[in-house]
Amino acid sequence: MKITCVQENLQKALAHTSRIIPSRSSLPILENVLFSTDQGRLKVSATDLELGINYWVGAKIEEDGSLALPSRLTTEFISNIKEDKVSIKSQGVDVSIEGEKYNATIKGIESEDYPLIPDITKDFIFSVSTKDLQTAISQVAFSSAADNARPVLSGVYFSFDKDTLKMAATDSYRLAEKTIKVVKGEKVAKNFIVPSRAIMELGKLLKDSGDKVEVCFDGNQVLFSLGSIHLVSRLIDGQYPNYTQIIPTDFESEIEVDKEELFTVCKVASLFARESANSIKINIKPDKNKEGVGILAITGQGNQIGESTSKITVKALGKELEVSFNAKYILDVLPNILEKKIKLKLAGKINPCLIQGDGKQDYTYVIMPLRA
Amino acid sequence: MKITCVQENLQKALAHTSRIIPSRSSLPILENVLFSTDQGRLKVSATDLELGINYWVGAKIEEDGSLALPSRLTTEFISNIKEDKVSIKSQGVDVSIEGEKYNATIKGIESEDYPLIPDITKDFIFSVSTKDLQTAISQVAFSSAADNARPVLSGVYFSFDKDTLKMAATDSYRLAEKTIKVVKGEKVAKNFIVPSRAIMELGKLLKDSGDKVEVCFDGNQVLFSLGSIHLVSRLIDGQYPNYTQIIPTDFESEIEVDKEELFTVCKVASLFARESANSIKINIKPDKNKEGVGILAITGQGNQIGESTSKITVKALGKELEVSFNAKYILDVLPNILEKKIKLKLAGKINPCLIQGDGKQDYTYVIMPLRA
Repeated sequence: MKITCVQENLQKALAHTSRIIPSRSSLPILENVLFSTDQGRLKVSATDLELGINYWVGAKIEEDGSLALPSRLTTEFISNIKEDKVSIKSQGVDVSIEGEKYNATIKGIESEDYPLIPDITKDFIFSVSTKDLQTAISQVAFSSAADNARPVLSGVYFSFDKDTLKMAATDSYRLAEKTIKVVKGEKVAKNFIVPSRAIMELGKLLKDSGDKVEVCFDGNQVLFSLGSIHLVSRLIDGQYPNYTQIIPTDFESEIEVDKEELFTVCKVASLFARESANSIKINIKPDKNKEGVGILAITGQGNQIGESTSKITVKALGKELEVSFNAKYILDVLPNILEKKIKLKLAGKINPCLIQGDGKQDYTYVIMPLRA
Repeated sequence: MKITCVQENLQKALAHTSRIIPSRSSLPILENVLFSTDQGRLKVSATDLELGINYWVGAKIEEDGSLALPSRLTTEFISNIKEDKVSIKSQGVDVSIEGEKYNATIKGIESEDYPLIPDITKDFIFSVSTKDLQTAISQVAFSSAADNARPVLSGVYFSFDKDTLKMAATDSYRLAEKTIKVVKGEKVAKNFIVPSRAIMELGKLLKDSGDKVEVCFDGNQVLFSLGSIHLVSRLIDGQYPNYTQIIPTDFESEIEVDKEELFTVCKVASLFARESANSIKINIKPDKNKEGVGILAITGQGNQIGESTSKITVKALGKELEVSFNAKYILDVLPNILEKKIKLKLAGKINPCLIQGDGKQDYTYVIMPLRA
């Protein structure tokens, strides 16, 4: 292998691919990134066997070849040097990287042992706008389950039909669902569950990519093509729960409140809720003398430490109601709602509650109350 | 106790005092901050028995009193709420804190059990400018020993005489010394060793204080008075090593180099020096045909991983020389040198090396070479 490329481009490719590499793996070759020439470009690849990234970089190729290089050292070297261009040349398993001031020889490993990242670009299903997908990821992925007790819940559910894509995630205590428009799609409806770790990585890659993301699916794997970056992930086997039935449609009380203000009062109450597993009490009291106005009081309480109640005036409709929630589930969603005003719709003490922005109704967040 | 004060001022006081409070202490009362009224102001105090801070806040006092409050909860509550003013009122060991929207009741502890922070303001020795002291702390404190193998080395040495203060720290592999002018001083010379942890905290407090710092010393303790903030620390017993004798004065080679550039080449070499305890090789080669110019080459090498050499053109005087250093000791000092150009003065393969900025000679940094 003998190539020349722009240092800044190589640095980006290494930063994005090396992020998925574990610092210690039971399979030592996975601690490496794979450099290989590919049709006039340099392809930088990384995989942990569940998730793989191919990142193509423009390069002047003088001699084709491939080699696996230690990920951490190579990434740190390339990101610390200040050069316009670097020349990369292999001699056996050694690679010399040369710039004007900086140069290094790094010991690599034969590329034959490096696991293949499958290419399923022929199985195109649909494409979406990068910006829409980015928003959907930030609004949905955090709601998936952190553990693997029920594997399907540790992923994000994609359901594509005609011209819309729904993405959903739930850990069975709260649910997030986002609907986005598809730019171009095949005729067949498809759905699949992608591990949320892959979705988080995809979210980071999207910052560095073009307008459009193509999604390909072959039954076992999904590929997100961002032009010169491909992310391939295995899928989670199993049936995703029919979550639509728990999204409430009838409500007893409804308030509209400033997002920042709701965040602060929930945060303050949660400080006093550490003993009680983060349980905070929300009390809505519509003003009897003033239609559409009411008081929202939020309380956190711990026997050992004390208690706090904050009161704010809000728009309120419906009945007086007091419900307990896990503060974390409210604090998680608020920064991901794009609108400044929040609607909180309650269906009684034991039924799911709906949180939405006051704008487009394409994002739905549902939380279960706690028994007081 | 019944007082009213500005939330923002109380927040600052709590942020600065609670920082020295351990999250778990063998003496549970130390997990609290002490609120007490003091001559028309509120005094917020914290101590870990070695280091204590008193922070006075303007307040409207309706009823004098004092109480210890859980540090973390109180600090988080006050910093999260958005209020202009808060009213604080004690009832037994409970304290109610009230604003317009937010209010809380926090369980406290009787103040009698809270350790006293000594006041030694009568033992004034000297005062210095806040800015000078801040610079000196950032330039010196990092060089003290991280462990307690030789207790005196875990502190910063203060030596005051007439109109100058010298501050020094060494871990026996490197030494930093800064000289600053005293604004006002007593006639007697004094020296003492302050734990570097106290000095680091002092550095953070200085960001929030007036022009001048008064230093008081009573033989066992030192007090830094920053107007409405007092930091009191115990001193380290023992004789500080006579370090001046190791500061070299005769040199074989000298270079002048851009600070950022030297940082980058040392950083890059250090990536390859992990196997060899961070040892990097510095080679200075004056150009035989061009007076005052030379090449600086810095190499890091690990048998398992490879090697890297960077070369930069520098101003150079004296002999050709190759010396090994711990890269960390060079990387530590460079961000703390104010000047853009660095002088590196070498006295051979085994003698201490001097690093200075090219400006005022009030800051000296010495490192010992490594045997190759």
